[in-house]
Amino acid sequence: MRKPIIGVMGPVKATKDDVKSAYKLGKLIAEKKWILLTGGGNVGVMEAVNRGAESQNGMKIGILPDDDKKKRYEGLDIAIVTNMGFARNVINALTSDVIIACGIGPGTTSEVAYGLRFAKPVVLLGYSRGDVAFLKKIGNTLHVASSPEEAIELTEKLLAKKR
Amino acid sequence: MRKPIIGVMGPVKATKDDVKSAYKLGKLIAEKKWILLTGGGNVGVMEAVNRGAESQNGMKIGILPDDDKKKRYEGLDIAIVTNMGFARNVINALTSDVIIACGIGPGTTSEVAYGLRFAKPVVLLGYSRGDVAFLKKIGNTLHVASSPEEAIELTEKLLAKKR
Amino acid sequence: MRKPIIGVMGPVKATKDDVKSAYKLGKLIAEKKWILLTGGGNVGVMEAVNRGAESQNGMKIGILPDDDKKKRYEGLDIAIVTNMGFARNVINALTSDVIIACGIGPGTTSEVAYGLRFAKPVVLLGYSRGDVAFLKKIGNTLHVASSPEEAIELTEKLLAKKR
Amino acid sequence: MRKPIIGVMGPVKATKDDVKSAYKLGKLIAEKKWILLTGGGNVGVMEAVNRGAESQNGMKIGILPDDDKKKRYEGLDIAIVTNMGFARNVINALTSDVIIACGIGPGTTSEVAYGLRFAKPVVLLGYSRGDVAFLKKIGNTLHVASSPEEAIELTEKLLAKKR
Repeated sequence: MRKPIIGVMGPVKATKDDVKSAYKLGKLIAEKKWILLTGGGNVGVMEAVNRGAESQNGMKIGILPDDDKKKRYEGLDIAIVTNMGFARNVINALTSDVIIACGIGPGTTSEVAYGLRFAKPVVLLGYSRGDVAFLKKIGNTLHVASSPEEAIELTEKLLAKKR
Repeated sequence: MRKPIIGVMGPVKATKDDVKSAYKLGKLIAEKKWILLTGGGNVGVMEAVNRGAESQNGMKIGILPDDDKKKRYEGLDIAIVTNMGFARNVINALTSDVIIACGIGPGTTSEVAYGLRFAKPVVLLGYSRGDVAFLKKIGNTLHVASSPEEAIELTEKLLAKKR
Repeated sequence: MRKPIIGVMGPVKATKDDVKSAYKLGKLIAEKKWILLTGGGNVGVMEAVNRGAESQNGMKIGILPDDDKKKRYEGLDIAIVTNMGFARNVINALTSDVIIACGIGPGTTSEVAYGLRFAKPVVLLGYSRGDVAFLKKIGNTLHVASSPEEAIELTEKLLAKKR
Repeated sequence: MRKPIIGVMGPVKATKDDVKSAYKLGKLIAEKKWILLTGGGNVGVMEAVNRGAESQNGMKIGILPDDDKKKRYEGLDIAIVTNMGFARNVINALTSDVIIACGIGPGTTSEVAYGLRFAKPVVLLGYSRGDVAFLKKIGNTLHVASSPEEAIELTEKLLAKKR
């Protein structure tokens, strides 16, 4: 049985709350024995969620925009090297069974938009009512969580529905 | 002197207003002797803006997601075939000197997000205050127009600034 | 410690010998506890090498050109969905620590060419002297094996050198 | 009527003969009023063929691997910015009506391989009998020229056949 792949997307310029949530998400994803997928960088939400997953020996895949080992989260189990820059955001969205957007940024928004376009379940964490109102206009597979724990609960339900 | 390339992005499921604005944008872009860039399809905003440009013999480039001639706007002067699906949205954003988003949809949002990420000038047409409020969070090269004419005026100023 | 990723590339229209070699390569790669990377399809060399790896419970990653589950080797542990068609061949080459080309075809040749461009070790299996003479013109990280066993021995040495 | 797009592919590390042939090809392509497509760089065959086309005021499109203006041939009429590195070689092959390979290198070989995979006419210039023998194994839309003039004659016939 193929393990679920949960994509956690979030900004490089993360707030303290984003980082805290991302770490928690990574931990919980690893505890569920799901595979964590990120953009693979060693900054912001990408770094924090990978660190969280690592704390529980979770499996971590990174879809890398370049071939620069210094910019890569060191503990990745699998490093997919695309060298395609931001075009790799499409792969993040397509490869994830569920996408969790933790915080707001331009790359993250492209991934949320792609996820909605591909009718993938997208869980938002750290988005205001106004933000959600805009994103609801572009897709109807959108879910909103108010804590990492709730995001994981939602993800579990969304995975169950897919089977 | 290289001619400016103006990318007009907009939804496949366009409203009547989107289509009307897109046609007008295409016409005005051609009158300015700028090059029109779109995703190259023969539906929605892509079709309408190309038709507008064609009415004034404007130059039209399409960045195509597939190699299917039936889905392509027939009158394109240059058809760039990527066969990379939605990854070609990155190319749309990177290749345009100014991006005009005419209407709202998931693909369009990915292109607006990429544009802001690459610090390209992005002009929004047909967006509410709430929509703009969200997008302002992810980049600061955002401009808002309330008519095709205003979008073109803004574009002209933005091009002048770049030189 | 990150496990080595061995990319096995080969034609869809595989000869009987290609298929036999591919199955053996998959088996040996799994026995070494390396990760197998392929283009992920359920035909030709891709199918055979994955089947070989599966026989030993090896880990199998597929870098998929599309999102069509019917065309995908069913037993993949990790399915990276690119939807970028043949542009995913670049990812195959960049992500592999060593590339083994098992048989000859256009896609395979693009991957060998990319591998050489990126100075990745490339091991050829099933290539004539004339074939090798041409490929030596385009890169100097080329190695030649005359059996799956020799290809794996070579791969082991090449991995040792990288560390 | 859409103008034909002729892709000229060739190595960065070009020989003197490659450069001379490329310049001539560019000149002849422009004289035929065809559009020249290259990888857009200001080195090797890319530079020479663009310079040749420029000498006759030919139209020149570059499909750029990055967003670095210093690496770009300055006189391009249209610069398609992909920022996808070598994945853009797929676009070169798919967008060209006929591909001319002028000289030998790894990137060029990937483009020849892609061209053959997509059943595009590919004209080789500067390839030995042995080189051709290998490439014939991977596709049957291959043609061989012994001079730039012959390559253009062949291209003209191949374009006529397509219509």
